[in-house]
Amino acid sequence: MTRRLKSDLGWSTADRIVVRGHDLVELLGKTSLGDFAFLELKGRVPTREESIVFNAITVTLVEHGMTPSAIAARLTYLGAPESLQGAVAAGLLGMGDRFGGSAEDAAHMLQDALSQATPDADLRAHASRIAADHKARKQPVAGLGHPVHKPVDPRTAKLFGIAAENGLSGRYVDLMRLVGEEASRVFGRDLPVNATGAIGAIASELEIPWRVCRGLAVMARAIGLVAHLQEEMEDPLAAEIWSRIEDESSSHLRPGSD
Amino acid sequence: MTRRLKSDLGWSTADRIVVRGHDLVELLGKTSLGDFAFLELKGRVPTREESIVFNAITVTLVEHGMTPSAIAARLTYLGAPESLQGAVAAGLLGMGDRFGGSAEDAAHMLQDALSQATPDADLRAHASRIAADHKARKQPVAGLGHPVHKPVDPRTAKLFGIAAENGLSGRYVDLMRLVGEEASRVFGRDLPVNATGAIGAIASELEIPWRVCRGLAVMARAIGLVAHLQEEMEDPLAAEIWSRIEDESSSHLRPGSD
Amino acid sequence: MTRRLKSDLGWSTADRIVVRGHDLVELLGKTSLGDFAFLELKGRVPTREESIVFNAITVTLVEHGMTPSAIAARLTYLGAPESLQGAVAAGLLGMGDRFGGSAEDAAHMLQDALSQATPDADLRAHASRIAADHKARKQPVAGLGHPVHKPVDPRTAKLFGIAAENGLSGRYVDLMRLVGEEASRVFGRDLPVNATGAIGAIASELEIPWRVCRGLAVMARAIGLVAHLQEEMEDPLAAEIWSRIEDESSSHLRPGSD
Amino acid sequence: MTRRLKSDLGWSTADRIVVRGHDLVELLGKTSLGDFAFLELKGRVPTREESIVFNAITVTLVEHGMTPSAIAARLTYLGAPESLQGAVAAGLLGMGDRFGGSAEDAAHMLQDALSQATPDADLRAHASRIAADHKARKQPVAGLGHPVHKPVDPRTAKLFGIAAENGLSGRYVDLMRLVGEEASRVFGRDLPVNATGAIGAIASELEIPWRVCRGLAVMARAIGLVAHLQEEMEDPLAAEIWSRIEDESSSHLRPGSD
Repeated sequence: MTRRLKSDLGWSTADRIVVRGHDLVELLGKTSLGDFAFLELKGRVPTREESIVFNAITVTLVEHGMTPSAIAARLTYLGAPESLQGAVAAGLLGMGDRFGGSAEDAAHMLQDALSQATPDADLRAHASRIAADHKARKQPVAGLGHPVHKPVDPRTAKLFGIAAENGLSGRYVDLMRLVGEEASRVFGRDLPVNATGAIGAIASELEIPWRVCRGLAVMARAIGLVAHLQEEMEDPLAAEIWSRIEDESSSHLRPGSD
Repeated sequence: MTRRLKSDLGWSTADRIVVRGHDLVELLGKTSLGDFAFLELKGRVPTREESIVFNAITVTLVEHGMTPSAIAARLTYLGAPESLQGAVAAGLLGMGDRFGGSAEDAAHMLQDALSQATPDADLRAHASRIAADHKARKQPVAGLGHPVHKPVDPRTAKLFGIAAENGLSGRYVDLMRLVGEEASRVFGRDLPVNATGAIGAIASELEIPWRVCRGLAVMARAIGLVAHLQEEMEDPLAAEIWSRIEDESSSHLRPGSD
Repeated sequence: MTRRLKSDLGWSTADRIVVRGHDLVELLGKTSLGDFAFLELKGRVPTREESIVFNAITVTLVEHGMTPSAIAARLTYLGAPESLQGAVAAGLLGMGDRFGGSAEDAAHMLQDALSQATPDADLRAHASRIAADHKARKQPVAGLGHPVHKPVDPRTAKLFGIAAENGLSGRYVDLMRLVGEEASRVFGRDLPVNATGAIGAIASELEIPWRVCRGLAVMARAIGLVAHLQEEMEDPLAAEIWSRIEDESSSHLRPGSD
Repeated sequence: MTRRLKSDLGWSTADRIVVRGHDLVELLGKTSLGDFAFLELKGRVPTREESIVFNAITVTLVEHGMTPSAIAARLTYLGAPESLQGAVAAGLLGMGDRFGGSAEDAAHMLQDALSQATPDADLRAHASRIAADHKARKQPVAGLGHPVHKPVDPRTAKLFGIAAENGLSGRYVDLMRLVGEEASRVFGRDLPVNATGAIGAIASELEIPWRVCRGLAVMARAIGLVAHLQEEMEDPLAAEIWSRIEDESSSHLRPGSD
């Protein structure tokens, strides 16, 4: 009647801790944090090439400066200094559809397109159909264009280069590039692949399911948020931000404000 | 009148992204996720030795099996599948005083003890005073003992060994060990250093402020939680957990239950 | 160049606190928490009829027993007892598309349908089209059916009755009922309006935008979660839940488990 | 061996929903949201006097203008518009030791002081000892003084008046007032009871455990945060806040900035 509960991630006894089938203690000192993340997600230690590529895409997602997430984390820490975990959580909660979701959307698009594709599929035809569909629905294509990094996102070429050097540039990367070309044509403006498009494509090469891609951004950004909170402890900004915004946003209501 | 807002973590222009003074694109492919986390926290790329030690302590914190955090994350995902970041955040919120806080408490104890200590300080005297203080206040000593990993935590010896091999076993590690010895004597039972005690001591050797140590657990566990959510997507447990707990916990209230 | 920041919700000076244009101190002792919530959302104190109806729909959302949200909040409190707010937040994070989202989805459907409708619109025709659309897309209709409360949800009749007695049963309620009838016909099985369908319809009568309807569930459930945490403090369940789930879910991996 | 899981808050069957022993459907239309919150916490419907007093203290906690919590919630919504619950959760996470904790701290102080007190206890002696202890430890006294509402917090007199009119001003309120007098004397400056001191005292009169008092702030503020998010949907501020803070905080790092 009841389903048996079962998880393969880890277990421990008095003298042993096992993660994904590996003795944790034997991995310590040999396996880096990024490689351990790969092990957690894929169930095996990465090859040297996979390690370089996986670490590159996650490193890209760690730090984006003073983002809404970083500001929210700092404001939260001001009110709840007892709970660093709460401030990190508050920051991560902003990694949603608009921010964390873009690599996921790109991977979703690519994985859907190729899920049924034969080895000799015409990738340009796929790209063309994707671009036309988005144009018809008046929707932007995930993974293309960037408000700041124009005309090209410097991370894209580097990430695609790293993938190629390590034998991990295949059909997903090809399709992502072609989608950029076709969308630029169909929308009539330059729409190069941005960093999240590159990450979505490369994560697909690593056979990471698209639903998990947002998680890559979340795990990486947790690191960046801890660094922001360390800086906030040393040189706090939150009280000043609060004071300015509170004053300005209510000034029209205060007596004598008109 | 107003304070200038200032952060040194990162910034970008159309063609450049700079993190902690380093060009991000130049680091990609060369710097692993763990080393990048070190850079974020310390403002410089780690030495080879620091890298091995820092990665070892963070890897230790990634995966502890089906913890309350992992269960909470899975239950949250059941109700809000649109928001993976919310499920990770829910899991991280349990990394507080009882779980994430133990490495922080150990580091706090060690850093406080040695903050004023001269180079020739008598570490055993410090350890003895710490043990006696805790005994007098009837408080357990942070970083000692473990409910499961008895008599010794297999991670402790390994982590201390890695620190020593890499020249990062100094006064904090010595003091932590001595605190274990003195507390065992004073409390009259075996209180070996556990994994969080080792991590608190080694993080102190790396000059990571104790307030940030909880953050090491938080950033590492974010990785583990994404892996739990990936498994939950493939083989969901949350609905079964809910159903069992709901039925059992209300059975005494239902008609005909007595 | 920059936009002026402006909020109309509240402000204060040394001797005055103003919320939505009302002196807070004058409202104290006269205005209930539910009516104050109405004031916050609508910018005016409710009429007696609006008060009864608004309080009824929010009360319905407070407590649903041992839900995934309540369990997640309790597990979070176990790990972070210093941060009650974190445990409530963890519980609320599960109020997403699957749980908190259903009243929102119903309100969305109703408000979209009637956004362009003339006063003499044929509501049954609207309902019929909605049911047919969902059938064609093989999608369940928001606000209809319930896994437990069958054949009728006892809350629905009561809420619709309260709305009618207070002059707040109009086109949205009529349309919701007709959608239930038409969907039952089209899908070929009994699909009565459930509690979230009733809440979505009545919130629409109160002219609450559909995007805010999930917020009604969130604010109400925050109350219920505090009550769960109070019970958890007095009679804790979380450690037992953890222990059982951890043991069972890893038993297949442990030595001698075959 | 295993403990039985048991919760008394609520349960349901096909045709009945019971909360704290009351049939939910019978309460609808009669019980306000605030009274239902009282029922959840206390296990019984409030008297008319308790209702007025409980609603007054929770209403006081709903809306404090553009606080760090409100700003964090708005910034989170910008990044994750799919998840209103995440934005509310992010805002609540700031209701910690510094904000939500002050009513808790006041209630803790009062409940500890009177936990062993006989009916004829000398409240001024208690107050004097509390003030002296805080002075000796160089700690501010919870519930006294306010950075903005000086010399007196307009909410305090009103809340104490409401409590007195409703027969709920007893020893906790008396002690809180005396603590204010004694602390003013000992610290040598005016330290009147502030709103959180009044709330902590009145919650104690209602026999709400001090550990739950932070929860009163959390549940009330959830309402205020939903109102902020509704305003943010209509008239967004978050992108402007982000843009200003990002520009200013990185300006010293950008080329040509010196």
